[in-house]
Formats: sequence, C-alpha cells, structure tokens
Amino acid sequence: MVVARGIRGGETCSIARTVDVLKDPWAFLVLREAFGGVTRFSDFRARLHIASDVLSDRLSALVTAGVLVREHYREAGSRPREEYRLTEAGDELRPVLAALQQWGDAHLPAECGPTVLWRHRETGELLEVAFVDADGRRVARADAVGERTAAYPA
Amino acid sequence: MVVARGIRGGETCSIARTVDVLKDPWAFLVLREAFGGVTRFSDFRARLHIASDVLSDRLSALVTAGVLVREHYREAGSRPREEYRLTEAGDELRPVLAALQQWGDAHLPAECGPTVLWRHRETGELLEVAFVDADGRRVARADAVGERTAAYPA
Repeated sequence: MVVARGIRGGETCSIARTVDVLKDPWAFLVLREAFGGVTRFSDFRARLHIASDVLSDRLSALVTAGVLVREHYREAGSRPREEYRLTEAGDELRPVLAALQQWGDAHLPAECGPTVLWRHRETGELLEVAFVDADGRRVARADAVGERTAAYPA
Repeated sequence: MVVARGIRGGETCSIARTVDVLKDPWAFLVLREAFGGVTRFSDFRARLHIASDVLSDRLSALVTAGVLVREHYREAGSRPREEYRLTEAGDELRPVLAALQQWGDAHLPAECGPTVLWRHRETGELLEVAFVDADGRRVARADAVGERTAAYPA
C-alpha cells in the first residue's frame, strides 16, 4: 500500500492521489493495453510506439503505485524476461478509466467518435458507469450527495 | 463543445481529454466546492485559501472546458459580481470524481480516512460507482470488456 506524498492536497484528498497515478498520458495508455491482456515489455512497446526507457519508467511507476506487479518468465531457450500483470487494485481502475472515457466521449468528443465501447462480456450490451446503491441498482446523479466526514479539512 | 488539442493522444483518447481537464489539483478542488453549492468567487477563495489570480485562472479554464458557466448577479447597493455555475457537463463529472475518490480511498488511503462519502440524498445509503447495464443493474467488473471501435488508432 502506498501513501502518496508531495501531492497538493494528497494528504486528505483521494481524488488528488488517484489523479497523480493517472495524469501521465502514458500511464493510462499502458493500463489500456494491460486491460486488453498485454503483459510483456516488448508487446507494450510494439503497441504504444514508445521508447524503451520511457516505457520502463512508466511501468516501474505503476508497480510502485501498486497497480501492476512485475513477474519473471522464461521461454525455452531464451533468457529470463519480465512481464507485468494487473493487481486487484489495477483491475479496479477499469470503471475509473471507463468513467473518464465516458465523460470525454460525451463532452469533449473526437471527430472520429469513441475509440472504445464497454460491453457486457456475455450479452454484448453497452455499459455505462454510474452511482449504484448497495442492492446494485443505479442511482440518479441528482440523488448522489457527497457528504463530508470529520476528516474533511477545516 | 471543446475539442482538446495539444494533448498527447487527445485526438483519439477521451481519457486523455478528461484527465487534461482534471489533472490540475485546483480544478477538482474548485469542482468539489461547486458540487457543494459554492458559486461565488469570494466563497471559492475563502474555502480554498487560494490566491485570486490562481482561482481566476482555474475558473476560466473550467469555463473554457464547458464545465462551469460564468453568470452575473448584483445585490442591492453593490457592484455587479460574477458567479460560476456547473453546466450539465460539469454535473456529469460527479460520478467521475466519485470513481477517482473511491479508488484512492481503497488503494491509496489517507491516515485520517475518507474525507467524503457519497450517499443517497433521501435514504442516506452509501453509494458506489460501478458499471451498469441499460436496465440500471450493476455489472461485475470482470464482465465489463472494453471493445475497440474502428476509430481506435492502428
């Protein structure tokens, strides 16, 4: 577990801490590939057209943030290599990235249209990201209220 | 409607475009206050302890991004003043910020605990942000698949 330091408001603001992980464009491009099943350094590099040192740096940052874990594998006749797998925390970034994407597609649309659509694995139905209650039912945005706790800065 | 330019990957990646709006820590601190009902320049300044020129700059950036709209009001005996109200697009950032917050609270927790909890306005029930289908039912993260469209960069 990482406690982010040196981020403005990061001591108390969890939004600041999450944005700090995601604000580098390469970070979420790497994550997008990881969600798509990419694990190997060479595959990330080939898909992202990114310099090795930059990729290495970003992968390490995501490992430090607890989003990816570095593992070793060895194919017959080859030297040992590293691969990067999503942790549970990393996988939980799916709806976070989908929420960012959904807003961008709705309010800052690209001329070419959305590049990714989220669908149900089995039914193919289009999905959205929204507030839900404990019973798993969607709650209208206007009914969601952010309540400050005692930890909220004075 | 704004089409973001000059953002790496921003032409095609809606995540990059949304993060570009949110990556400045002041941007989401301003938004947090706006969700809490703050509209006046002086109230934002008093709550955020922020220099006037920095605040003015961030408010203008959020107006340009289509998240806030600048309006004028005049109280009896005072000079006209400006206030800033959330647009529909701005209000739709609620679940986006809640998703970022939820992840940060779960995976990069602060010692003091969460500063904001999202609750149902009427029932007080704790809410989460998650994938939902067209019927408004929660969909497990493992069942949500990001499918690339024809617009996805080769």
